[in-house]
Amino acid sequence: MPRRPSSENSFVAKIQSRFSEAKSRAAKDASRPLALAIGDDAALFRPTAGHETILTCDWFLEGTHFLRGKHPADSVGWKCLARAVSDIAAMGGRPRCFLLSLALPAELTATWFDAFLNGLHRAARTFDCQLAGGDTTRRSEILINITVAGEIARGQALRRDSAKARDILFVSGRLGEAEHGLQLLRNRRGKINRRDRDLRKHLYPQPRLALAQWLAEKKLASGAMDLSDGLSTDLARLCAASRVGARVDIGKLPVVNLARGKNNSRPKPHRSRLSSAHIAKADEALQLALHGGDDYELLFVVPPQKAGEIPPIFAGVPLLAIGEITKSRKILLAGESRLATELRPAGWDPFR
Amino acid sequence: MPRRPSSENSFVAKIQSRFSEAKSRAAKDASRPLALAIGDDAALFRPTAGHETILTCDWFLEGTHFLRGKHPADSVGWKCLARAVSDIAAMGGRPRCFLLSLALPAELTATWFDAFLNGLHRAARTFDCQLAGGDTTRRSEILINITVAGEIARGQALRRDSAKARDILFVSGRLGEAEHGLQLLRNRRGKINRRDRDLRKHLYPQPRLALAQWLAEKKLASGAMDLSDGLSTDLARLCAASRVGARVDIGKLPVVNLARGKNNSRPKPHRSRLSSAHIAKADEALQLALHGGDDYELLFVVPPQKAGEIPPIFAGVPLLAIGEITKSRKILLAGESRLATELRPAGWDPFR
Repeated sequence: MPRRPSSENSFVAKIQSRFSEAKSRAAKDASRPLALAIGDDAALFRPTAGHETILTCDWFLEGTHFLRGKHPADSVGWKCLARAVSDIAAMGGRPRCFLLSLALPAELTATWFDAFLNGLHRAARTFDCQLAGGDTTRRSEILINITVAGEIARGQALRRDSAKARDILFVSGRLGEAEHGLQLLRNRRGKINRRDRDLRKHLYPQPRLALAQWLAEKKLASGAMDLSDGLSTDLARLCAASRVGARVDIGKLPVVNLARGKNNSRPKPHRSRLSSAHIAKADEALQLALHGGDDYELLFVVPPQKAGEIPPIFAGVPLLAIGEITKSRKILLAGESRLATELRPAGWDPFR
Repeated sequence: MPRRPSSENSFVAKIQSRFSEAKSRAAKDASRPLALAIGDDAALFRPTAGHETILTCDWFLEGTHFLRGKHPADSVGWKCLARAVSDIAAMGGRPRCFLLSLALPAELTATWFDAFLNGLHRAARTFDCQLAGGDTTRRSEILINITVAGEIARGQALRRDSAKARDILFVSGRLGEAEHGLQLLRNRRGKINRRDRDLRKHLYPQPRLALAQWLAEKKLASGAMDLSDGLSTDLARLCAASRVGARVDIGKLPVVNLARGKNNSRPKPHRSRLSSAHIAKADEALQLALHGGDDYELLFVVPPQKAGEIPPIFAGVPLLAIGEITKSRKILLAGESRLATELRPAGWDPFR
């Protein structure tokens, strides 16, 4: 049986020992980003010359962002870091270190906590993002807040406010898969299979670090953001920041494949079929792609003369041109008919 | 009537307009720390050459750290930032920018929120710490997490793990005042007078930035930390990190003055008096000084040959030598009798 820590000091010691490389690396290796990690009033981060530091933080709250009874603890650990790291990816940056703020009920400080730390540790290694410090307390609900510090060469960050009319709009991956996974998860009874393919994108999202870093280094993208709240909501934010509009081609959207077990194939553009069952499925997939949250795919814009340099697949992730940026500030959804309809934000919004 | 924001975008817009200098300053002034503030996926911070970045985060949760019905909203705004900035002070650093993670009940997004932003904004100006970004959501309880990024010249940080035997132990200010203020606040009925002198230290703590920066620059202190959880708990942490012990002289502790209205005078060392009422008061004050949390005073150690350079008052804040660091790893409390008793951690610990 894992032991339950009896004081804040022993709670912190447990985190520290799970991330034990943090302390030894900080002390010994001058090339590591941290001069001082867990155990002091604050962490000391060594910035890289000629780089800007990217700072971001993200809530991950029981009941709001995940369900204690449904989401495996190691997925909670993975995902809380992955979604914050996705903001670093959205800027084209490289994650360096993170702070963990954690409030836990007493009954979860043993088994649940160990599995949580496993998921978190795996994410930290995968994204090469070191634990630098944090804050812990006891609380009746699980509350998590993650701060990530990343870096990018000065002036290279992919911003939201620099999209230009005629830029081509691209997305990575398939849209709506995570929301579909959440729907399946909500309806499942009993123990969740953490390896279930249909749940994977929802439980263990992959921030598009390599893609975004490549776009920033090669100066191919004129702007980018990650899709966390759904395309309809996030595209509206990008357009508002850049004072532009967009025209999205329905037929080009890489929608979630609702036929099970085929998720691994390359996404095909969405097409409506003839049978009514097909049409219903197609419409469901389209709605998920337009408004589903939590995909953490990259939405990016590329000047038309550079669009040819975007490959169809980058590091195993499909990339698709889904439309273009327009001078008119509306966001339009263009279908097979000549008539385009306005796309209204209907993704995740905690205030709605 | 302040308007209640209806979406996350308008909620963020309200924060942004209250901190409107953040955006314009970031864009225009290359000497400011931010290249990009609120409104993108993440903030861009420009580190100063030759400096390390100090990173810290702090929970500030309704019910755990403050009471919605007792603590004025502007004190919540001030204090959530002040206590995180205090961690920057504890390292000898200068705060540069912060991230605000805020979860609010719908009914508080108008009047309460405005007062909260006022207190937060005043703290941000006072500490010269710019709002860089954050995350917001809706929740039934008020949840706050603050991340602060500060800076210090490379190698100058005041650490916890570098105290040496024979170093002299100093504290700033009076100890126990904040805890005493909390006790008074809990017992008050009706509206709180925000200007009440006895509550001031609890409601509007002052991180010891100028003092700590001076100690770090002049290389006078061999270590430091801020007193957030009470002397008995925090001194034990400093000693554990440095693998040393300490001997604290009861008679030298600058204890809270429990006689009202005299809080402004210079703290006098604690002395037990003869009458039993005096003895009870003196003992209460001593307990508050030893175990009371939230003072955000600076605990620092100075090599004996430099102790003479510590003035009795720095920038209006009294400084007192209260004991010394010992090779033996116990923490002893030495009174007027020859017998020293062991000081056990009994300050704030959410896991106890």
